[in-house]
Amino acid sequence: MLAEIITIGDEILIGQIVDTNSAWIAVELNKIGIRVKQISSVSDNREHILTALAEASKRVDVILITGGLGPTKDDITKKTIAEYFNVGFVENAETLAHVTEIFARYNRPLLEVNKQQALVPANCEVLLNKNGTAPGMWFNEGGKIYISMPGVPHEMMYMMEDSVIPKLKSTLKLPFILHKTILTVGEGESFLAERIADIEDSMPDYIKLAYLPKLGQVRLRLSGYGEDAKFITAKVNEYAAKIVERVANVVAAEEDIAIEKAILDFMQSKGLTLTVAESCTGGYISHLFTQHAGSSKVFLGGAVSYSYELKESMLGVKNETLWQYGAVSKETVTEMVFGALNNFNSDYAIAVTGIAGPDGGTSDKPVGTVWIAVANKDKSVIKKFTFGNKRKQNIERTATTALNILNILLHEKAE
Amino acid sequence: MLAEIITIGDEILIGQIVDTNSAWIAVELNKIGIRVKQISSVSDNREHILTALAEASKRVDVILITGGLGPTKDDITKKTIAEYFNVGFVENAETLAHVTEIFARYNRPLLEVNKQQALVPANCEVLLNKNGTAPGMWFNEGGKIYISMPGVPHEMMYMMEDSVIPKLKSTLKLPFILHKTILTVGEGESFLAERIADIEDSMPDYIKLAYLPKLGQVRLRLSGYGEDAKFITAKVNEYAAKIVERVANVVAAEEDIAIEKAILDFMQSKGLTLTVAESCTGGYISHLFTQHAGSSKVFLGGAVSYSYELKESMLGVKNETLWQYGAVSKETVTEMVFGALNNFNSDYAIAVTGIAGPDGGTSDKPVGTVWIAVANKDKSVIKKFTFGNKRKQNIERTATTALNILNILLHEKAE
Repeated sequence: MLAEIITIGDEILIGQIVDTNSAWIAVELNKIGIRVKQISSVSDNREHILTALAEASKRVDVILITGGLGPTKDDITKKTIAEYFNVGFVENAETLAHVTEIFARYNRPLLEVNKQQALVPANCEVLLNKNGTAPGMWFNEGGKIYISMPGVPHEMMYMMEDSVIPKLKSTLKLPFILHKTILTVGEGESFLAERIADIEDSMPDYIKLAYLPKLGQVRLRLSGYGEDAKFITAKVNEYAAKIVERVANVVAAEEDIAIEKAILDFMQSKGLTLTVAESCTGGYISHLFTQHAGSSKVFLGGAVSYSYELKESMLGVKNETLWQYGAVSKETVTEMVFGALNNFNSDYAIAVTGIAGPDGGTSDKPVGTVWIAVANKDKSVIKKFTFGNKRKQNIERTATTALNILNILLHEKAE
Repeated sequence: MLAEIITIGDEILIGQIVDTNSAWIAVELNKIGIRVKQISSVSDNREHILTALAEASKRVDVILITGGLGPTKDDITKKTIAEYFNVGFVENAETLAHVTEIFARYNRPLLEVNKQQALVPANCEVLLNKNGTAPGMWFNEGGKIYISMPGVPHEMMYMMEDSVIPKLKSTLKLPFILHKTILTVGEGESFLAERIADIEDSMPDYIKLAYLPKLGQVRLRLSGYGEDAKFITAKVNEYAAKIVERVANVVAAEEDIAIEKAILDFMQSKGLTLTVAESCTGGYISHLFTQHAGSSKVFLGGAVSYSYELKESMLGVKNETLWQYGAVSKETVTEMVFGALNNFNSDYAIAVTGIAGPDGGTSDKPVGTVWIAVANKDKSVIKKFTFGNKRKQNIERTATTALNILNILLHEKAE
């Protein structure tokens, strides 16, 4: 069963927002065995939307449309879909009551444009929007299913979970897809490929292997497709196990999780705690950990010490160390990591300090110079890196590199 | 001049990665007057790539392709493009030297798959990849330009900046596009639309107005298209000024920047400093500020105090407050915000504490319960919110709401 996601809105095409909806929708569809064949982002333009709907209907069975359902003039998805199906509008009583109730609840007057949100194409089945005023719409025409949803992420997500996924499962006979991912840290893509070449060559047609490299990590993803869930699952697991056995020394997780989640899981299983002292990453490492549910069992917190004063008061870095060696130095990062270990009382600590850029570089410490320290009470790894000149990437590379170092240190200790 | 971005790779279609490349490329193209007509994400599949190239060539003048250039078997972009143009391969001496040099630098053996990266379709012009081994490729065929780039973001970005953008500018006669964005905080989309309805109705055809709502903020984006840059710029600025004058009380910035950047700019202009005390946002607010260059002039740092112990030791929250009222309470958030102001010695502070979920909720404090405090030495705003049950969104909504409150408080004070 194939699907296409069509996102409507000029804001994506001019790059004002990143389309995060499509990836989320794709994950949810994959879980129920629907493969996304294509994602198309098109403009708030009548002809373009009509063309996109027609092209998608030739490629796939299910077409999911997001965006363009707001009350304002630039939102034309609803009337364009009605034109595509050549139908008129009807008022949906349930939606009108819902919109009226929302405005009453916030004690705001109900405007004419908001009342019009209850008008829907005559051939649609309405999907209630619990988190907003624009209703979702489900169409079943010409053997194809078309689903129109709001583009606001939390409105779309609730609608998918509450209505769309259950309705797709009950309406369609769905095949089986299984993805299994192995996260590796510390070995390059082509070297991994050489190590497992014979396993890859022996794989059957219904299993695909992909290499997804990213900043010192490579994800190996096996995807199995078929009718027989039990058979596909057994075969995917069999080949995954062969790969894990072969490259065991670089495997960080046998599931599709981020490196910091693999670290949290491992540390929780050992009863270990972690704190951080962040300068150039400015809270990003803390954010990576704390975005995961249950992180508080391992991650106690830490300092975002951007200024000299906070490096001293929160972490106990000595004033003379900062003035003699500078904030970006082996001496400072060392005092930071032990300051975190001691002041915050954790088993492990990460400290980073560097010049994220674009300003602040000097000839001996150019933008991209970063010191990373990872330590427990017995052992520390303290390294200097020279990344690039892009701030955002320096922050991300510093964080990921620190996580990779911690992961390796944790597993060394465990052996 | 119209462009289409084609991203190739199953990892996008199964939702394993979010396509951030396309938004970045779109922004860069817009700056030089190239409009993105469509973004299409397709699979690592020969027929699908061929179809996407053919469809795009009917719609647009410039086709930018990312992904599928790695050395491994699942990467088939290069050979499929050669098939599309019906040409053979030649070895590119410069690329071979570059790849050889990279492997020598890291003291690793040059594998056969890496040597093959120097093979390129006979009709292409090679774009050197300074940050990786896969070369970019530029094709000019049938009056259309095709550009193939790696999917790894930092490799693609350098290639765009170093080669693609300069080459597009020198090759094409480009029209003019201007986007101007007004950031508003605290007024809903439809109420804004009512307030400026007459201005919107009076706008000429060559200016489009879009409403982009997000978590208590609405961006108003004016887009002007034409040949005469001076005329378009003047007209877009004229209508933007009318709108700003009408809704001045809710305008946070007259450019397309994030709310935290507007806050940093304003605070820097007044010589004010800021610190944070983050519990449930776990470093995310700090990250929002510190991702911006120059943030250290305003943002001194702060505490990520996930545990009770760190709330006490870093922020001076009293042990009896935590035990009597709980970590998620008016009393705790108040001690946190004044702890940050006093211990970290800043003009303003933000404190947040809440239950991000999915676990940790109780009947009187369900998941999504959040206390936010924003204060300076004279004034504080302390409010309770009840968000939803999704962790990631609770973190984002808490952060954005805190930023909105700080922005309003800053401007109140300034009046």
